[in-house]
Amino acid sequence: MFKTDLEIAQECVLEPIRDVAAKIGVTEDDLEYYGKYKAKVSLDLLNRNKDKEDGKLILVTAINPTKAGEGKSTTTVGLGDALNRMGKKTMIALREPSLGPVFGLKGGAAGGGYAQVVPMEDINLHFTGDMHAITTANNLISACLDNHIHQGNALDIDIEHVTWKRCLDMNDRTLRNIRIGMGAKANGVERQDGFNITVASEVMAVLCLATSLSDLKTRLGNMLVAYNTKNEPIYVKDLGIEGALAMVLKDAIKPNMVQTLEHNPVLIHGGPFANIAHGCNSILATKTCLKLADYTVTEAGFGADLGAEKFLDIKCRFGNLKPNAVVIVATIRALKQHGNVAYEDLKEENVEAMLEGCANLAKHIDTVKQFGLPYIVAINEFASDTPKEVEALENWCKEHGHPMSLSQVWAKGGEGALDLAEKVVALCEEENSYAPLYDVEDSIEDKIHTIATKVYGADGVEFSEEAKQQIALYNKMGWDKMPICMAKTQMSLSDDAKKYGAPKGFMITVRELNPSLGAGFLVALTGKVLTMPGLPAVPAANNMDIDEEGHIKGLF
Amino acid sequence: MFKTDLEIAQECVLEPIRDVAAKIGVTEDDLEYYGKYKAKVSLDLLNRNKDKEDGKLILVTAINPTKAGEGKSTTTVGLGDALNRMGKKTMIALREPSLGPVFGLKGGAAGGGYAQVVPMEDINLHFTGDMHAITTANNLISACLDNHIHQGNALDIDIEHVTWKRCLDMNDRTLRNIRIGMGAKANGVERQDGFNITVASEVMAVLCLATSLSDLKTRLGNMLVAYNTKNEPIYVKDLGIEGALAMVLKDAIKPNMVQTLEHNPVLIHGGPFANIAHGCNSILATKTCLKLADYTVTEAGFGADLGAEKFLDIKCRFGNLKPNAVVIVATIRALKQHGNVAYEDLKEENVEAMLEGCANLAKHIDTVKQFGLPYIVAINEFASDTPKEVEALENWCKEHGHPMSLSQVWAKGGEGALDLAEKVVALCEEENSYAPLYDVEDSIEDKIHTIATKVYGADGVEFSEEAKQQIALYNKMGWDKMPICMAKTQMSLSDDAKKYGAPKGFMITVRELNPSLGAGFLVALTGKVLTMPGLPAVPAANNMDIDEEGHIKGLF
Repeated sequence: MFKTDLEIAQECVLEPIRDVAAKIGVTEDDLEYYGKYKAKVSLDLLNRNKDKEDGKLILVTAINPTKAGEGKSTTTVGLGDALNRMGKKTMIALREPSLGPVFGLKGGAAGGGYAQVVPMEDINLHFTGDMHAITTANNLISACLDNHIHQGNALDIDIEHVTWKRCLDMNDRTLRNIRIGMGAKANGVERQDGFNITVASEVMAVLCLATSLSDLKTRLGNMLVAYNTKNEPIYVKDLGIEGALAMVLKDAIKPNMVQTLEHNPVLIHGGPFANIAHGCNSILATKTCLKLADYTVTEAGFGADLGAEKFLDIKCRFGNLKPNAVVIVATIRALKQHGNVAYEDLKEENVEAMLEGCANLAKHIDTVKQFGLPYIVAINEFASDTPKEVEALENWCKEHGHPMSLSQVWAKGGEGALDLAEKVVALCEEENSYAPLYDVEDSIEDKIHTIATKVYGADGVEFSEEAKQQIALYNKMGWDKMPICMAKTQMSLSDDAKKYGAPKGFMITVRELNPSLGAGFLVALTGKVLTMPGLPAVPAANNMDIDEEGHIKGLF
Repeated sequence: MFKTDLEIAQECVLEPIRDVAAKIGVTEDDLEYYGKYKAKVSLDLLNRNKDKEDGKLILVTAINPTKAGEGKSTTTVGLGDALNRMGKKTMIALREPSLGPVFGLKGGAAGGGYAQVVPMEDINLHFTGDMHAITTANNLISACLDNHIHQGNALDIDIEHVTWKRCLDMNDRTLRNIRIGMGAKANGVERQDGFNITVASEVMAVLCLATSLSDLKTRLGNMLVAYNTKNEPIYVKDLGIEGALAMVLKDAIKPNMVQTLEHNPVLIHGGPFANIAHGCNSILATKTCLKLADYTVTEAGFGADLGAEKFLDIKCRFGNLKPNAVVIVATIRALKQHGNVAYEDLKEENVEAMLEGCANLAKHIDTVKQFGLPYIVAINEFASDTPKEVEALENWCKEHGHPMSLSQVWAKGGEGALDLAEKVVALCEEENSYAPLYDVEDSIEDKIHTIATKVYGADGVEFSEEAKQQIALYNKMGWDKMPICMAKTQMSLSDDAKKYGAPKGFMITVRELNPSLGAGFLVALTGKVLTMPGLPAVPAANNMDIDEEGHIKGLF
């Protein structure tokens, strides 16, 4: 009988975070404890080390996720532990989990098996409160905006043209489209509104892209909230609350330190989803790792079409980061699913389907190559993988000249990724020609076309009438010289969740474009992707419990 | 030039919370640090001391609040510091501030002047995250409920008869009355809903009244959320998520320790408003103080008609607490306002108006006497008070046989309340005949009538048609044998905010009655009181700021 991730995590005897921090030279002066095993890290640490050379930066990405599971976080943690086992001073930078999926589909998210980050219960629940602070800041904007309208609307805000939405860190489909301010006049001015999930909020993006507290305040002030009746933009700074918002986020802006099961230091900070947001942990956390450690292993959400593309086109561009190597994670099970094997049949050997599914892996490898980066395929082994399947996959990689490594991080932790770690260290010594895929000076249409054709393999892009009108407006406003943050289903390279493998002959439909002027990008909503998920028929919450001694059950 | 509360608080050199805890014999084993100056206190501390005799319990209450200010929290903190100066081992138990008023009217709330609780910035912002955890639990119920309806509604929930509302810790009037689930079918089932402020959520009441983690879980499961189409009640436990909710609240249930400016230990835990909820900090925090200290000073919100009545009729009844003395706080300024002096004219001497305003103070004294408790009037001195006014007030107290003390806690901290502290110690030695005002076995109408006539001085109670129907239903359901939690304006003894002093010849109108079956009381909404406040024309948020070094401005 296998132990659950939660059981393995609960068996771990954690080291005091003070001792974990000491391993990379961080003293108590730079830590604010949240209990014994979590700490906020001072931003001053980054300032004091600003002249120090950065360590190596390794990005872990994956094929398109399937129900079968890939193990990207697990590989990230296992690789970090393996590098530390090799004597390389290594840190890991991850995103904070959202409570939406925790209560919804999948329970916790902090790696798996013997490659986890702990204390996993806290990380998956309120952690150090960053997510709640972001929710508060987001909704303070809405409350002040609607209060402004109610109190006489001196800014002449067009109530049919409010772009700012409320948010909650919750999967709650009924809040997508709501009508507020109903009933008596004392209840404010009635208008249409909606909630996003917090991880899709621009406040989250701004927190992840800010480089200091004052930069954060400036970005918050620049966020677009509405247009007035003359169609002129209204910003947060027009409401005069960017100081209050920065104050609300004064602790949230500091990265959080925790440890792996092998007691290596991890920064977990910021958690935008990669399908509906930019999908990377904060620039401040990554930069802090790069200054403190010789190797930093980080991940970007979902497949390379989403997280990695945005990591390389947005985060690295804004943060002036130079990645050294990319790890592309796949499992034999997931490749079979991309080869159109039904979920129920994944246990059965099927070399042919697996090789067919490799088309998906091949496309993501191609994407990483286009960014000019060295890469390695990491196959996350499952007990159900057969020797014939493993051999066929090894041969496929060999034939196509793809470096690869088999890893057993789930079962063995860092020990299961020593081969991968050695190969990654070698890759980091290679010169690379990393560059973003497009120039921000390109037109909005060209930038989206570049991503759709080069990364997704689409034939082209169709823009809805609404999107066309928005592009015209944004061109006029001078908001066209920013990177694009694509919002697309994670399940497929296309914008249709049902298309597995590497689909061909399809168009990407851009439904809507939203300017995130504080974050500094345009969000392009494709297909049917929604910024507020729903709960499944039986939410994960139904299986969760806690006893009188505080022991938790059902959190994966 | 007077310093602001924030400036005084920022000048304080705090002691590590470890050292503060040590003063009352609490060691590191029972603390979970949140930074250096805040800690969660283990519930095990209470269990281990359960056979120890309780210390003395002192309640601080006040006249009806006015714009002029009374200083109830300030007096509570100053009295606690004074008792410690006298060598009495004393703790203070307070409520956690809500972000609604922080961003709205008044900025922070943790005492004032030299009688404050610190770190006030943290206490007034996210503190240790309890408020956010409550918001999350509340909204997880809503999300699961609406998801249940969307996924086929096996419980046959009547969507016109959902009693559970969403909540946010924010003043946001436009969320009072909303329509959710609009648009496409994928957005869930459309229905009417609304948000309360988090401090009015039943989850907050349950957290404050729970006596253990398992009691918390049971109470959460018993909360009413809706009726089915046969008019039968649907509870949280029918949704099967009480375990998940208790897990969400696993840290929030632990009291938070901070310190006064004089480095004495304070527990701040739970924060229901006293106008729209029961207005007292948690039973767990108060009980912990009673076991650790010889004297516990606590406060209940707003005037004695609201907080004290609910403290004595609900909290003490449920928690089996025996109060020893009551301090009734008033200011000469506020008494003048109760004597119908305009706010602008309060600086001018007006003995006559002050004596007229004493009618309000007299009514609250009368209430405390009816509960069978010894009391003292604490006059919180202001620089604008004239010798004639002070003398007249002293004479008024003498004539009517009311013990009193002049205190200068704002300017002098504990030193300013030494006389008050000595008198309070003496009161605590008196035998008292404390008993709640009504029997829970009385009818709903009789219990409300008792409170309205004996505490508010009303002639009687009028019930709306809706309230009458609700009473009939609750009688049938067997929900009538619970205490009543009155929701009423804090500004007046009546349910009309504009009636100062001690109004006569008025009726109390009960508009609506809501069963809080997890908390164990019925909420009676009177007059126009609302469970979601709005922001003023210029919110306090507009004056708040933070600089690059993290220094805060404008938080009072």
